Amino acid sequence: MKIAIVAPACTLDRAVADSVSALAREHYPSVELVFHPQCFLSWGHFAGTDAERSSAFLEAANDPAFDAVWVARGGYGSNRLLETVLHRLEVPARRKTYLGYSDLGFLLAGLKAAGFPKLAHGPMPADFKRKDGEKAVRRALDFLALGLRNGFDPAVEDNVPFAAFNITILSELLGTPWQPDLSGHVLLLEDVSEHLYRIDRAMFHITSNPAMRKVRGIRLGRVSDIQPNDPDFAQTPEQIVRHWCEVSGIPYLGAADIGHDVENKIVPFGLWRPESASTS
Amino acid sequence: MKIAIVAPACTLDRAVADSVSALAREHYPSVELVFHPQCFLSWGHFAGTDAERSSAFLEAANDPAFDAVWVARGGYGSNRLLETVLHRLEVPARRKTYLGYSDLGFLLAGLKAAGFPKLAHGPMPADFKRKDGEKAVRRALDFLALGLRNGFDPAVEDNVPFAAFNITILSELLGTPWQPDLSGHVLLLEDVSEHLYRIDRAMFHITSNPAMRKVRGIRLGRVSDIQPNDPDFAQTPEQIVRHWCEVSGIPYLGAADIGHDVENKIVPFGLWRPESASTS
Repeated sequence: MKIAIVAPACTLDRAVADSVSALAREHYPSVELVFHPQCFLSWGHFAGTDAERSSAFLEAANDPAFDAVWVARGGYGSNRLLETVLHRLEVPARRKTYLGYSDLGFLLAGLKAAGFPKLAHGPMPADFKRKDGEKAVRRALDFLALGLRNGFDPAVEDNVPFAAFNITILSELLGTPWQPDLSGHVLLLEDVSEHLYRIDRAMFHITSNPAMRKVRGIRLGRVSDIQPNDPDFAQTPEQIVRHWCEVSGIPYLGAADIGHDVENKIVPFGLWRPESASTS
Repeated sequence: MKIAIVAPACTLDRAVADSVSALAREHYPSVELVFHPQCFLSWGHFAGTDAERSSAFLEAANDPAFDAVWVARGGYGSNRLLETVLHRLEVPARRKTYLGYSDLGFLLAGLKAAGFPKLAHGPMPADFKRKDGEKAVRRALDFLALGLRNGFDPAVEDNVPFAAFNITILSELLGTPWQPDLSGHVLLLEDVSEHLYRIDRAMFHITSNPAMRKVRGIRLGRVSDIQPNDPDFAQTPEQIVRHWCEVSGIPYLGAADIGHDVENKIVPFGLWRPESASTS
């Protein structure tokens, strides 16, 4: 089992990569983690230029030696690769599992729109930096390396398609060629470091899109590190999401256990569940 | 000439309304400005509940006694009226001029998508609060009351369709029923109080929308009060816009004289120019 780690958005700390590698050596002896050197590059906001990030992603995805592509860290920037990367993905890329969240929703969406079957929303190596971050990283490795399902969001069930996105990222994808078809899906949403008026605006946007109105329902994960709203917004994130579900006729299904924190659970996309799945 | 003022987004200061009324009485004796009492309501972030803001807008727009609807102030919230207001607009609403900018782009877009002919992006009463704000307000009144063209953005020409939007607002409209058809239009853009990574992301979004790729070209106005980016974004707003124009094949046409400031010029939408136009 060989996992490639690339950074389509922001630069990963080398110390984090070393800690995650050590953790994998200790607890997942059958796994080889390969941090692509691109993870440590820096170009302005990004982990290298668009060309450097694109090449690294393509190398990892198209190399038949790797079983999975694990995204190192979010931030901002994976959208800048969509136009150049997707049409260069080859057959071995389609066989791999892809795991990440936050800004990486851009890539997950693009891969889903292109019919890639094995996509999941969940922890990244950079989560190691959080307090008790090992917990999040081990949840990801249990899933990627062992195919365990015990890190799944508790709402995930078989024979019902699922998807999960950051609210802002999904909003910024609408009406582009990379908007995924989520008809019939249970859609889990989360966000971080936004003002509530931005959350309200993005929920307006998502629930006003005719294709998005075909989702089976919405569950709301954590909306954390909310920025001060002036004046006070006077509604909670749940009230905001319930409001837009009501306006749009999308069923609100309750809470989700995802967010920018160590508890962030894994959500496999569509009907796919890992092959060596076990409920242990 | 009777102008109705309503606030589909945030509350207007009563003192600002008084100052703008006094200015109009002094310099535009033929004009009657009517501030709807809804302008001064408050409900959380908004100038009254959605129902209160919707009613006020409909009253003003559908009343044949008014020649124009001038939006009091931006902020956030006019999107929340789109679903309920647009299909209730009657024949007299279609004859009026509508003026506003920033968050009001939501309404301008919805009205444009619904085929309303007399729309313009330009100063609002709330601009009176800015240093030398009278300049912006008089530009708006010269246009609304006298049909003068000297407050137009210098790029505006006859027989070429124009439109102007806040970058973030346009992005949050894409893929909704209120996305206006801007094929062949020169599109002027501006923004305020955003991080550069957000500007980059919204420009990715706008220029990745297939219908938006049919604009005649993009001009960039001011991007002001930029929030600190960590790390430094290393690109200017103009570089960002040029980048996405290049990626998308949309011609970049240069600067625009619009933005969140007193210099903010007027941009009439489509091919419409005021009937009593004069180049004085």
